Amino acid sequence: MTNLDAYRISSEPFYRAVDSEIELFEAAHKSRMPVMLKGPTGCGKTRFVEYMAWRLGKPLITVSCHEDMTASDLVGRYLLDSHGTAWHDGPLTLAVRGGAICYLDEIVEARQDTTVVIHSLTDDRRILTLEKRNEVVKAHPDFQVVISYNPGYQSVLKDLKESTKQRFSAIAFGYPNSDVEAEIIKREAAVDRRTADTLVRIAARSRNLKGHGLEEGASTRMLINAGLLVAADIPIERACQVAMVVPITDDPDLRDALTGAIAACL
Amino acid sequence: MTNLDAYRISSEPFYRAVDSEIELFEAAHKSRMPVMLKGPTGCGKTRFVEYMAWRLGKPLITVSCHEDMTASDLVGRYLLDSHGTAWHDGPLTLAVRGGAICYLDEIVEARQDTTVVIHSLTDDRRILTLEKRNEVVKAHPDFQVVISYNPGYQSVLKDLKESTKQRFSAIAFGYPNSDVEAEIIKREAAVDRRTADTLVRIAARSRNLKGHGLEEGASTRMLINAGLLVAADIPIERACQVAMVVPITDDPDLRDALTGAIAACL
Amino acid sequence: MTNLDAYRISSEPFYRAVDSEIELFEAAHKSRMPVMLKGPTGCGKTRFVEYMAWRLGKPLITVSCHEDMTASDLVGRYLLDSHGTAWHDGPLTLAVRGGAICYLDEIVEARQDTTVVIHSLTDDRRILTLEKRNEVVKAHPDFQVVISYNPGYQSVLKDLKESTKQRFSAIAFGYPNSDVEAEIIKREAAVDRRTADTLVRIAARSRNLKGHGLEEGASTRMLINAGLLVAADIPIERACQVAMVVPITDDPDLRDALTGAIAACL
Amino acid sequence: MTNLDAYRISSEPFYRAVDSEIELFEAAHKSRMPVMLKGPTGCGKTRFVEYMAWRLGKPLITVSCHEDMTASDLVGRYLLDSHGTAWHDGPLTLAVRGGAICYLDEIVEARQDTTVVIHSLTDDRRILTLEKRNEVVKAHPDFQVVISYNPGYQSVLKDLKESTKQRFSAIAFGYPNSDVEAEIIKREAAVDRRTADTLVRIAARSRNLKGHGLEEGASTRMLINAGLLVAADIPIERACQVAMVVPITDDPDLRDALTGAIAACL
Amino acid sequence: MTNLDAYRISSEPFYRAVDSEIELFEAAHKSRMPVMLKGPTGCGKTRFVEYMAWRLGKPLITVSCHEDMTASDLVGRYLLDSHGTAWHDGPLTLAVRGGAICYLDEIVEARQDTTVVIHSLTDDRRILTLEKRNEVVKAHPDFQVVISYNPGYQSVLKDLKESTKQRFSAIAFGYPNSDVEAEIIKREAAVDRRTADTLVRIAARSRNLKGHGLEEGASTRMLINAGLLVAADIPIERACQVAMVVPITDDPDLRDALTGAIAACL
Amino acid sequence: MTNLDAYRISSEPFYRAVDSEIELFEAAHKSRMPVMLKGPTGCGKTRFVEYMAWRLGKPLITVSCHEDMTASDLVGRYLLDSHGTAWHDGPLTLAVRGGAICYLDEIVEARQDTTVVIHSLTDDRRILTLEKRNEVVKAHPDFQVVISYNPGYQSVLKDLKESTKQRFSAIAFGYPNSDVEAEIIKREAAVDRRTADTLVRIAARSRNLKGHGLEEGASTRMLINAGLLVAADIPIERACQVAMVVPITDDPDLRDALTGAIAACL
Repeated sequence: MTNLDAYRISSEPFYRAVDSEIELFEAAHKSRMPVMLKGPTGCGKTRFVEYMAWRLGKPLITVSCHEDMTASDLVGRYLLDSHGTAWHDGPLTLAVRGGAICYLDEIVEARQDTTVVIHSLTDDRRILTLEKRNEVVKAHPDFQVVISYNPGYQSVLKDLKESTKQRFSAIAFGYPNSDVEAEIIKREAAVDRRTADTLVRIAARSRNLKGHGLEEGASTRMLINAGLLVAADIPIERACQVAMVVPITDDPDLRDALTGAIAACL
Repeated sequence: MTNLDAYRISSEPFYRAVDSEIELFEAAHKSRMPVMLKGPTGCGKTRFVEYMAWRLGKPLITVSCHEDMTASDLVGRYLLDSHGTAWHDGPLTLAVRGGAICYLDEIVEARQDTTVVIHSLTDDRRILTLEKRNEVVKAHPDFQVVISYNPGYQSVLKDLKESTKQRFSAIAFGYPNSDVEAEIIKREAAVDRRTADTLVRIAARSRNLKGHGLEEGASTRMLINAGLLVAADIPIERACQVAMVVPITDDPDLRDALTGAIAACL
Repeated sequence: MTNLDAYRISSEPFYRAVDSEIELFEAAHKSRMPVMLKGPTGCGKTRFVEYMAWRLGKPLITVSCHEDMTASDLVGRYLLDSHGTAWHDGPLTLAVRGGAICYLDEIVEARQDTTVVIHSLTDDRRILTLEKRNEVVKAHPDFQVVISYNPGYQSVLKDLKESTKQRFSAIAFGYPNSDVEAEIIKREAAVDRRTADTLVRIAARSRNLKGHGLEEGASTRMLINAGLLVAADIPIERACQVAMVVPITDDPDLRDALTGAIAACL
Repeated sequence: MTNLDAYRISSEPFYRAVDSEIELFEAAHKSRMPVMLKGPTGCGKTRFVEYMAWRLGKPLITVSCHEDMTASDLVGRYLLDSHGTAWHDGPLTLAVRGGAICYLDEIVEARQDTTVVIHSLTDDRRILTLEKRNEVVKAHPDFQVVISYNPGYQSVLKDLKESTKQRFSAIAFGYPNSDVEAEIIKREAAVDRRTADTLVRIAARSRNLKGHGLEEGASTRMLINAGLLVAADIPIERACQVAMVVPITDDPDLRDALTGAIAACL
Repeated sequence: MTNLDAYRISSEPFYRAVDSEIELFEAAHKSRMPVMLKGPTGCGKTRFVEYMAWRLGKPLITVSCHEDMTASDLVGRYLLDSHGTAWHDGPLTLAVRGGAICYLDEIVEARQDTTVVIHSLTDDRRILTLEKRNEVVKAHPDFQVVISYNPGYQSVLKDLKESTKQRFSAIAFGYPNSDVEAEIIKREAAVDRRTADTLVRIAARSRNLKGHGLEEGASTRMLINAGLLVAADIPIERACQVAMVVPITDDPDLRDALTGAIAACL
Repeated sequence: MTNLDAYRISSEPFYRAVDSEIELFEAAHKSRMPVMLKGPTGCGKTRFVEYMAWRLGKPLITVSCHEDMTASDLVGRYLLDSHGTAWHDGPLTLAVRGGAICYLDEIVEARQDTTVVIHSLTDDRRILTLEKRNEVVKAHPDFQVVISYNPGYQSVLKDLKESTKQRFSAIAFGYPNSDVEAEIIKREAAVDRRTADTLVRIAARSRNLKGHGLEEGASTRMLINAGLLVAADIPIERACQVAMVVPITDDPDLRDALTGAIAACL
């Protein structure tokens, strides 16, 4: 049995529930049903899965998927290491053997062989075949697959196959309501509530610009960045520019619109 | 002779026949004729092949094909493993030597070299040439090739070659009729028959939306997921959202149509 | 000298001549002229070359070409095998040294480097240069190259170069006439002549649909598959569906047309 | 703990502040917030980050990203070196362990797997998972990520993902004002102030041509090159040709326009 | 010094001069000027270079270029062979050291790195840098580069660079005149002169069809193939079909035109 | 310190200055400023850099860039050679350590990672980071980068990045004036001055055809080739065909135009 203590969340992550997502996740977890977390970037999906892992007392193995990731990166390979040649379990195999929640962040970015690998783990077979070792690994009873999926990113060329999607139950995430979001900013950036409220108002206006040239509005993460700069004595207007305007657009009109939105809230 | 006990199905898989598929498979199996299972995702093709392997008392080696799979992944290769360099039979070679049913799931996803490899195994030659070992393996008398093929997925760019298709007899699968499907859900999700019937009615409506923006309707697998959530005390309307709506579409109109379909059946 | 006994055809393959193809092949073989076998899939090209190899008493080395095949796959390479590093002749080199007929099935699928490799073997030089071994192999006097070529498959993007084509004499193949074809089916599927005749009539109708949505009509191979199912007590109408309709098309109109063609012949 | 003394800037780099960029960087550095430096080529971004590293007393590890760079190039790999096989930390891992500022120059050039690697280092997790070593590295408290981003270069095909951009605060750079730029040229090229002023006037005219066929105007770096040639006794008109005209355009009209601009300032 | 005896042409190859090509080659050889042989496939370029190598008493190393050929295939590499790791000169390096004529057949097929490798060998430097060995090889005084180039094959995408072309003197080849061609066929196919004359007349008609759907007319090589079949008792009309019609076209109209051309000459 | 004696130019290369290129190069060399040599193929750029290396008494390491060249080809790698595994400096690293002029011929052909590698060597940092060795190499005080760039070859898809171009001063080259060119031909081809003058007149006419279907006119190198053939007793008209017409075009009209130009000058 693999020791996965390094992957346990030692202290409770700060998480404020937005809807019934905690109950839904717990219900899915009961039958180890695969779960898909859907929602825009920076809205708290990663934090949520860390919170659930802590709450359920399960180790959490996170893999940030990317387009050069192959099945071997997930499953494992024989590696020349300092002790000679040895089989090295990949993060997925580690989770399968040790009973962790395996969180595949933005799995749609990975190559198709990656998604196929999880098929036999996300139906009633719950097995992983390590072909290079001629080994069939039965999943630990606690093993569960969680994936994230950002609807704004998918395209015809790059989407999960139907046969993958249908294996998952899905929980939709959005940005928290203004009260919850202000509380999050206050806590994470160590600013006063008034500053936090101002930032949330600015975010609301920025999110209205989504679709009008802006791919996405300001995320909670960006508001925290702005808050941290304010806490380091940068004036709030400048902090918002640096954390919420300059990083996401170089279009002069959009910059003006965003700058106007900031000014209107101060 | 290779020992394939690990690939034997130890207990009878739950399978409810829909048509004469069992007799057809047995007839094809008599002359070890290659068989193609055609049908939509989640309708029970994998379960069927597991059932037939159990019924015929043959080991079953399943390979989930993907677009980065090469002939070597199927046939084998020399590997540096912990005991030095050794030839390692791939899953296909294992099946050829040991007389297993080799199930190549979604073979059309694999690269062309993979499909060519099975040509000499799917005509009267029944041989597999391991060129790197200079070895010609005569297939075990029990060896049979089974492939799955999802008609909805193929395109001009990605389809089996005529010379491959013509080697197979093909059995078409659809979703089971409502009575059989309800029984399956009742058993697999441990819900009462009334809940199962409700879910089947919802599925019927969802499947009518196929082609109207929906790539595929709800599969039997998704109904079981919804049932499992109900069994974990999630209200059925919410369970259907989580298991049957959110995973497959982000289009607001389609979501509304599906939500309406669910409401109409409750 | 390499021992190629494993590549000899031990018993006479069943082959029924359609035209003067046997005499033509023998004439070409006299001067070891490269031969191209042209014709649709499943019409008996592979069987013909096996028959000729048996008739001429020559070993036969068959290579199924595919788009990931490289020159090294044909010629050979240094391999790490269980006895350490050693040069390993590829199938072409084996045939060149040992005087076999080398049959490159669907060579057009392979990468260009593969076709270039046979150039010095298909003109009067008859040599193969193993650059990695610094060795120039003079072809054994019995060595001959045979390739297959399916006219229906070629495209502008994927065709043999003129400089390759011009090295070959070519024999055109079609399906055998109805009498010969019925005899073949009777023998290979162990059905009575009446069933065989019925299947041949169905094939004739199916082949008329070629070009009307069907890429190719039913091959002799498919008729044998249908016969085998009949011999295993599947009703002939169902057997034809399974062996000749479902594998090759999912288009409802074409399926209807084919089903009508079958019904009309029963 | 890794010794990063080789990566410390030993003497104060010459840097003239243009705006409040020093204060902003210091504020971001307080919470180790990731920073994006935005601006055209040759305007001093690299020099600025060297100056800030010196000012903050932190080692600086610079990586010039390119389109063939992979995650392993950043993170590390097992290498066969002269002492046998050993794990070799990549530059990012070196920075993470040793508490350096890691400057990823033109990160958008790199493949997507590179940007994904920094995700877990640029949110509150601040960890780097070395999957091949099964090691989770907690970032040194001093570790900070800085990237450069040239708005003129990005395209639809090649841009940072929203989920990456939102992690960074961004500081916009332009060319320095004429007085500051002249002082820089005087110092770096060892020319008199009059020559420096002339070069700055020429640059201003050249920058006005941007968009009229010229991708970018003359950078501060090019002015220094022209100054160095003048200091080596090349006449200023010829020096400007060699350093500011010939390298960037072969279009006769543009060359004429630039030559005219030079002549007008002498 | 490398021993290249295996690459010497031991007996005079049969070659009939068409124009002043022998004198031109000898003049170019005097200053070891690189020579390009231009002309259609099967017209005798390879035979010519073999003849010239014999006539000049120089070893000849021929490389058939293809699109997967890399610079290392030409220059050499460290190879794991049966005696351990050792540097292995590629065919070009062999020729450079040993003073052979190096004939790069259809070099335009190879990747660009291959053509760049010959640059320093085809100007007055006459050196080859083996970067992996840190060795600069001065060409043997007898070394000469010859390449073939088929004008009909080149395209915008695949052509030699100007900087490569300009290094070569070029000799243009066509098919020999009818008298010479008949003599060649008579000799190579061992047929009587009347048959040879008939084949040459057929070729003339076939070559007139070039451009009218036919990529190239019948080459001398194809006429020899037809002759060889006639010598093996195949009737001349059938022999022409097999050697000159079926291999090069599947278009019914073109086949008819070619068949008519054959009939008209008998 | 690396011994680069093998890379020193032992005797003065023949070079005739066309303009002030020698003075400009010496001025740039004083501050080791990177230099770009711009001009058409075969006009003498390579000879110029050899001359300058000789004149300045610096070793010269030339790298012919090509599209498959990677950063490792320039920088170095661990190699399995006959003495085991050892680090092997690439040509750039050799030049950086030993203080050579490193001439990257047609660098734009190479992949982007190659150009990025020289960035830290072509600004005031003058360092090369060998990431695989964890070594930062400070450039030898004599090290200088020179690149060649052919304006006629660049396209939108393949050009140096602005951030690379701006690092270089650039010297433009053309063909020498007729008197200088005739002297070069006389010397290099060992022909009399009258022949040389005739060839120069022909070149002038050929260069006028540039743009009218001809990618480039006859280079000085081609004139020398024609001269060498004349010196080997080939008539001048034929020599010009072989050296200046046939190698560069297959277009009948262009061939006629060039042939007319030759005839007009004789």
